[in-house]
Amino acid sequence: MDRPAPRRPKRTNDPEGMRRRVLDVAEETFQARGYHASSLGDVMAAAGVTGGALHHHFPTKKVLALAVIEERVAAAVEETWIAPLRRGPSARDGVRAVFDAVAAELERQGYVRGCPLNNLAHELSLADEEFRTALATVFADWRQAIADKVRDDQRSGREVGTDPDRFATLAVAVYSGAMSMAKTSQDAGVLRECLKGLFPSSF
Amino acid sequence: MDRPAPRRPKRTNDPEGMRRRVLDVAEETFQARGYHASSLGDVMAAAGVTGGALHHHFPTKKVLALAVIEERVAAAVEETWIAPLRRGPSARDGVRAVFDAVAAELERQGYVRGCPLNNLAHELSLADEEFRTALATVFADWRQAIADKVRDDQRSGREVGTDPDRFATLAVAVYSGAMSMAKTSQDAGVLRECLKGLFPSSF
Repeated sequence: MDRPAPRRPKRTNDPEGMRRRVLDVAEETFQARGYHASSLGDVMAAAGVTGGALHHHFPTKKVLALAVIEERVAAAVEETWIAPLRRGPSARDGVRAVFDAVAAELERQGYVRGCPLNNLAHELSLADEEFRTALATVFADWRQAIADKVRDDQRSGREVGTDPDRFATLAVAVYSGAMSMAKTSQDAGVLRECLKGLFPSSF
Repeated sequence: MDRPAPRRPKRTNDPEGMRRRVLDVAEETFQARGYHASSLGDVMAAAGVTGGALHHHFPTKKVLALAVIEERVAAAVEETWIAPLRRGPSARDGVRAVFDAVAAELERQGYVRGCPLNNLAHELSLADEEFRTALATVFADWRQAIADKVRDDQRSGREVGTDPDRFATLAVAVYSGAMSMAKTSQDAGVLRECLKGLFPSSF
């Protein structure tokens, strides 16, 4: 393409772009190495920002981690779970579709990094009460979305005799535990096996 | 008590006692703070051992963590899950008894630290291949013990039409995920809720 690039602000004049870059790097390093094993210096270097710029957006490492949980981890659960579930014809179909899609994606990439929420929940729930509350909110919203879908199914007669909150809690538990095993065995097959165990009559 | 204390070897002449003390402290600190956030200096100080003594038993932090996984975490799974399951009248009864016992114990202590295996699996599975293999072995032995119990039940006619490996994988996934949520919400009730979801016909 020989056309000149569109004009855009320089990086240093793009505070939102800089904030986004810092969050990209922090999300990646907290997931890959853990919060405690990641330093703000590493984040600054990888994001290409100065200490002053980092401090402007995120005065402490804790503030940065809370933003990763509330913005990035919550968005990952929304994208992977909640949106496909809402689009599906029923809660059961939605849960099945999510398990299948995640298993297929993990098999395609040949690598299991685990569930972003569970990864941080294990490391940070006991470390700090604000971390714990932020993580618990993401779990609660996830369960709520599944339970609400079951209630929709019940109103339209597609689901009978299922406790919506219990179904939601079980689905999140099975997925979370399956991802823990899949990460440890580096084998996504455990997701498919758990799905068959969860809905035995469907297979 | 005015009687003289029984003679016993001094601590410095009790290498097995010292090794045990170091493992006690390392197990505790890795669970409470995580592997990366714990230093060998902290372990030395809390266990009351010198650097030389620590190095004699555990030349590196990695060797110490592998011992924690292979001895302490495996023993916790054996004690909490495998032994009660084997003693129970059936796999289903055993799984139910374990969920109930763990929920009751967590409610009694008013605090959820999470599952020792899952806590370390999330932090260490991607950090090092030997950690990952050691953790995967503990998961595999746990699933094997449940599947073997289902096979016993089938031989004696107590269980019909259940895939032993699938049942075992699902039970471990539900428990692992429920403990993850219980830790994040600091509420053991999710274990009871998941148990009811897992065996709906029993409630």
